[in-house]
Amino acid sequence: MSQPRTVFFVSDRTGITVEMLGNSLLTQFDDIEFQRVTLPFIDNIEKARDVLSQVERAGVDSGKRPLVFTSLMTETLRHEISRANAMVLDVVERFIVPLEEELGIKSAHAIGRSHSAGNFKDYNHRIEAVNYTLAHDDGMTNRNLEQADIILVGVSRSGKTPTCLYMALQFGVKAANYPLIPEDLERMKLPPALLPLRHKVWGLSILPERLKTIRQERKPDSKYASFENCKWEVDAAEALMKTAGISFLNSTTKSIEELAATILHEARLVRRVY
Amino acid sequence: MSQPRTVFFVSDRTGITVEMLGNSLLTQFDDIEFQRVTLPFIDNIEKARDVLSQVERAGVDSGKRPLVFTSLMTETLRHEISRANAMVLDVVERFIVPLEEELGIKSAHAIGRSHSAGNFKDYNHRIEAVNYTLAHDDGMTNRNLEQADIILVGVSRSGKTPTCLYMALQFGVKAANYPLIPEDLERMKLPPALLPLRHKVWGLSILPERLKTIRQERKPDSKYASFENCKWEVDAAEALMKTAGISFLNSTTKSIEELAATILHEARLVRRVY
Repeated sequence: MSQPRTVFFVSDRTGITVEMLGNSLLTQFDDIEFQRVTLPFIDNIEKARDVLSQVERAGVDSGKRPLVFTSLMTETLRHEISRANAMVLDVVERFIVPLEEELGIKSAHAIGRSHSAGNFKDYNHRIEAVNYTLAHDDGMTNRNLEQADIILVGVSRSGKTPTCLYMALQFGVKAANYPLIPEDLERMKLPPALLPLRHKVWGLSILPERLKTIRQERKPDSKYASFENCKWEVDAAEALMKTAGISFLNSTTKSIEELAATILHEARLVRRVY
Repeated sequence: MSQPRTVFFVSDRTGITVEMLGNSLLTQFDDIEFQRVTLPFIDNIEKARDVLSQVERAGVDSGKRPLVFTSLMTETLRHEISRANAMVLDVVERFIVPLEEELGIKSAHAIGRSHSAGNFKDYNHRIEAVNYTLAHDDGMTNRNLEQADIILVGVSRSGKTPTCLYMALQFGVKAANYPLIPEDLERMKLPPALLPLRHKVWGLSILPERLKTIRQERKPDSKYASFENCKWEVDAAEALMKTAGISFLNSTTKSIEELAATILHEARLVRRVY
């Protein structure tokens, strides 16, 4: 059996950016199997040397030249990694150097500027968004509902909670969510508290087959999880949302990131970046 | 007054990757003021033309050549943006082309591979991590506590909840959290349920001044928010964690991303990527 090619994501800080970039590029090479290794906090020469030997070993073991995505800011560390018998894709070199030329100044070349605790106001805004979103999960309270940036509706287990939490953590958005329960579906009306806020309401839907699978894991062989009930709820919820003029997205085919970014885009909300 | 230079993040999908990469690079140029604009879902030529005119306008209005980070996969769309009087930093061109050479195959050049709903197993693992984390927030239950990958402890408002939620959403980690309450601090012992799981326990601490500010917003002029009480709780919690052999990080000086990545790294947990 052929060995997968190893891909390293090497960073002097969290590695989140370089890992996300590298992964996003590799999804374009679907036919190739990769073994991914993230090495964060590589901030001194001993650690860089250790990375170098891990990369060399992976190349020997797999018989394939590894790929190494790096975002190391310090020249000596980058130099150390560049010695590897590997394809090194250096984010700093490829972007910082042309940026320095364009902007006419040298960059700080400082470790740890990204994702470091910025000013307290930004931090606080983000935490407030998370707290608001948690307090307004699953229709828990209508208190201060008018302060929501977004209110998501959908049947139970359609993906509302993770999408709201992602919007809060990634973009600083106050995202409430409200389940559409059988009573709403029978009345064919939005929960009354949402009527004056309809311009902030977005919907999630889901394929009945997928919904059944998800519910089955929580409450096996219940009416709640039965295909017939799932299909009835989904059909009724979609009909209700159409009647109420609420746009909705399908969480079966979209990731949490896509749901969150699409809703923010359609709602014309500002994306904060942390 | 001098106008800020405009920076565009242009993507055919969510824009999250290119926005994070661009922001991370710009933090290296601290002295320059930038105006950031994210333009996601640019997936046809009309939208690309609209981006082009927004970029041109920003250049004229500010008197400064804009920066444009793009991750457009389609050749015609990239070509359209490249016509702008701007510095275009094209992620695809700078990385996909050398990757194609190294890997010896053409990339799919397909829109929307990143952050798209992958296989159900991955998706389910991520949602399960979020559900677990929500159910085990703030010591809510000890049920299935042994299934946690990580258990965070710390005084009320030290940043446990957002850090746990980030670990769940970003890395698929089941992260429980447990407050250290005055009873624990007086006894100088971890909550009893955590004793058999001490190897999974990490701590968060915070500067008493910062804690006071955060608590003051929630319960103004309470004993809970007083500086004396905050200082007592923080000192006692740090002493307790030292006694119990629990490593702790300070949330005053670290971002949520840094806290999450550091804890995962120290705990040697696998980072999933979604």
